[in-house]
Amino acid sequence: MEAKKIFLPESELPRTWYNIAADMPTPMEPPLHPGTGQPCGPEDLAPIFPMPLIEQEVSQERWIDIPDEVLEKYLIWRPTPLYRASGLEKFLDTPAKIYFKNEGVSPAGSHKPNTAVPQAYYNKISGTKRICTETGAGQWGSALSFCCSLFGLECKVYMVKVSYQQKPYRRMMMETWGGTCVPSPSTETNAGRSILAQNPDSPGSLGIAISEAVEDAITHEDTRYCLGSVLNHVCLHQSVIGLEAKEQMAMVGDYPDVVIGCHGGGSNFAGLGFPFVSDKANGKDVRILAAEPISCPTLTKGVYEFDYGDQAKMAPISKMYTLGHDFMPPGIHAGGLRYHGAAPLVSQLLDAGVIEAKAVGQVECFEAAVQFARCEGIIPAPESSHAIRAAFDEALQAKEEGKEKTILFNLSGHGHVDMASYDAYFSGGLENYEYPSEAIQESLAALPKVDF
Amino acid sequence: MEAKKIFLPESELPRTWYNIAADMPTPMEPPLHPGTGQPCGPEDLAPIFPMPLIEQEVSQERWIDIPDEVLEKYLIWRPTPLYRASGLEKFLDTPAKIYFKNEGVSPAGSHKPNTAVPQAYYNKISGTKRICTETGAGQWGSALSFCCSLFGLECKVYMVKVSYQQKPYRRMMMETWGGTCVPSPSTETNAGRSILAQNPDSPGSLGIAISEAVEDAITHEDTRYCLGSVLNHVCLHQSVIGLEAKEQMAMVGDYPDVVIGCHGGGSNFAGLGFPFVSDKANGKDVRILAAEPISCPTLTKGVYEFDYGDQAKMAPISKMYTLGHDFMPPGIHAGGLRYHGAAPLVSQLLDAGVIEAKAVGQVECFEAAVQFARCEGIIPAPESSHAIRAAFDEALQAKEEGKEKTILFNLSGHGHVDMASYDAYFSGGLENYEYPSEAIQESLAALPKVDF
Repeated sequence: MEAKKIFLPESELPRTWYNIAADMPTPMEPPLHPGTGQPCGPEDLAPIFPMPLIEQEVSQERWIDIPDEVLEKYLIWRPTPLYRASGLEKFLDTPAKIYFKNEGVSPAGSHKPNTAVPQAYYNKISGTKRICTETGAGQWGSALSFCCSLFGLECKVYMVKVSYQQKPYRRMMMETWGGTCVPSPSTETNAGRSILAQNPDSPGSLGIAISEAVEDAITHEDTRYCLGSVLNHVCLHQSVIGLEAKEQMAMVGDYPDVVIGCHGGGSNFAGLGFPFVSDKANGKDVRILAAEPISCPTLTKGVYEFDYGDQAKMAPISKMYTLGHDFMPPGIHAGGLRYHGAAPLVSQLLDAGVIEAKAVGQVECFEAAVQFARCEGIIPAPESSHAIRAAFDEALQAKEEGKEKTILFNLSGHGHVDMASYDAYFSGGLENYEYPSEAIQESLAALPKVDF
Repeated sequence: MEAKKIFLPESELPRTWYNIAADMPTPMEPPLHPGTGQPCGPEDLAPIFPMPLIEQEVSQERWIDIPDEVLEKYLIWRPTPLYRASGLEKFLDTPAKIYFKNEGVSPAGSHKPNTAVPQAYYNKISGTKRICTETGAGQWGSALSFCCSLFGLECKVYMVKVSYQQKPYRRMMMETWGGTCVPSPSTETNAGRSILAQNPDSPGSLGIAISEAVEDAITHEDTRYCLGSVLNHVCLHQSVIGLEAKEQMAMVGDYPDVVIGCHGGGSNFAGLGFPFVSDKANGKDVRILAAEPISCPTLTKGVYEFDYGDQAKMAPISKMYTLGHDFMPPGIHAGGLRYHGAAPLVSQLLDAGVIEAKAVGQVECFEAAVQFARCEGIIPAPESSHAIRAAFDEALQAKEEGKEKTILFNLSGHGHVDMASYDAYFSGGLENYEYPSEAIQESLAALPKVDF
């Protein structure tokens, strides 16, 4: 009997997060204030985030202790299993070995609680009573609601209206965990009301929802804002994925030639990949590959410039790969990969040539996801299917070249709440939306002028 | 840091199933042929089931080896975690200790693959190429599709039409795993066509769907039928749940005073409970409690008599607790608990006073499920909420009496695909349907006359 699942004992759960800021090849660019264009200080961020998270955001310490209270909650589902995908290897008839880390076993069904737990915890100990956030398809909003319930915090989620209407299941999950979810634009904020006055039928956008959540946090007592991706402290918290995976690979005496994660804002990619980046800095020969949708090709067709984090220009200006804050990606089924920018840490590593990126089409992604489900039994989230597609391509290339290769990818979530996307795929209703280069040039024209 | 999750290492996965037939307090009654009313022999069952499963159905061996090929597939998600529900204990302010076994971590999201894996395996080695089954809400059909994909078997599922229309997600899961799912009554069988001729708008029923699946199996080459509950070999396969749970309780030096499972056909209840029944036979002081819906009160208001397994009178006649094969339960949200009968093994143990049963209302069940989700982070399937309700009641009683008590229940599945039921609960759209006793008397009048 072949042990396909590589189980890490609870006693081996990492006790520290890995902070890649300590190992960056070039100095990091500071975020700029969206109003002044000058570097943000802690005092600029204090109305939005609690101090322990602001400290983590700028920390240069390589290892940061995970508090006991966070470890206790991680243990609800962590360590997550690592799998050898032997069924898939057989199907692809490849000399490559394929491993994947399954983050879909969390109660919210994705990797998002890895950062939602510490964000809720640090808010709790800082006196926050209520947390606001935005959510697109609902993965982040549901993960944060789950974690707020664990720490007894109120949770308010502004959900992009079109998703609120089309994807009711994740809204219902938020409510089950005690969160409140409203469609954005809402009548509860100035930002929402002003959009509704111009366009009562606005379908909403992530940019609008961010503006509403930030305004809510700033204007309510004991309320703070949380973000589920992009930021340094989010990448830090997600590093548990890669730290565990390295231990699990070592348990079977193996090490990856290529490490793959899907890429939207960057959090699950960074989570698996960054601990391997640190090995690379120490001389290991390992490729780290981000797989993004061709319909939102931030890393492969964007530019590395300063840009706003949101459409409404309320979030800090960061140096990052971006398609422009006005960029409006088409409604692909991987809702979690529709962000115009990329995590500054991921962007800087790509610019420095430390990591790679490729873009894949959603039809090929679903094709790979369905085959994966039939070989390995687990139905992937549409987002995760981008990592699977890239892993397929690596395995098929190994076959063509007759080379051995060890592939590791992140299965960032399960697809039980996304079955309608599979239905669209089976009924032939999915297309590959490749975003036209001219349109990207247009949205890039709106980048801020930065004197810094 | 308190270790809430009790992890059983892979090396401790049970290597044998426990067969309670070896320990029954009274001799078992044989199933009768629905046509002749005489005891069924293996030759009667051979067109429907492969021989290894027929042998397990009648086996009196206490321990039956789990084949390596089945263990390998079990390892995709087993051993499943046992949890100490300390958040819930705190919320209920009870002196009781509450543990639960989480079967929702399987790729299909429920305990059903515990028997779907061996059923697919034994069919595979017996030369079956294609498997037929029926499904109500879709838990069983999706679990069987998943396991057929693992063994390269075709899978055809007849899904009760009203569920097919109202619960598309599980149908989509079946298709993703390569299964074929049609609404029943269908035009593909004589049984289906004759129902449609009488009533083109028939919403279907589990009884009709069973008839279609059995007819399909009998009339197609290399095709057999699978059932997801009730039968002895299903209870046998599910015993891995309780065997693991006993080891896990021992790891923390504890043992339950009461073991609770929700009850529809009996498979998840038997899976957790039967290994503890064997301890009881050896003198241990442990209660084993089945929690069923008041809208389908098979164990608490049914009679212990011979009855057909299905409405169409094609399945064997078994001695069991039954509400009558014509009994039509209301459309409660726990679709998996709407069966008129109970597993013969469970029935016989209830009749002998070895186990207990209680009925609970769905409104109180959802109330408990929501509280559970907020304390423990996991959203339960509506079926599992019946076990949670019963666990709440036991814990609250312990508080009232000021007594210590150790409670263990089975969380048979997660509720991610059932969020619409939670939505109905939150919007006040759920009622407790208590089935009227007179109506039960009416359907009991249709029990078969058995001379045996």
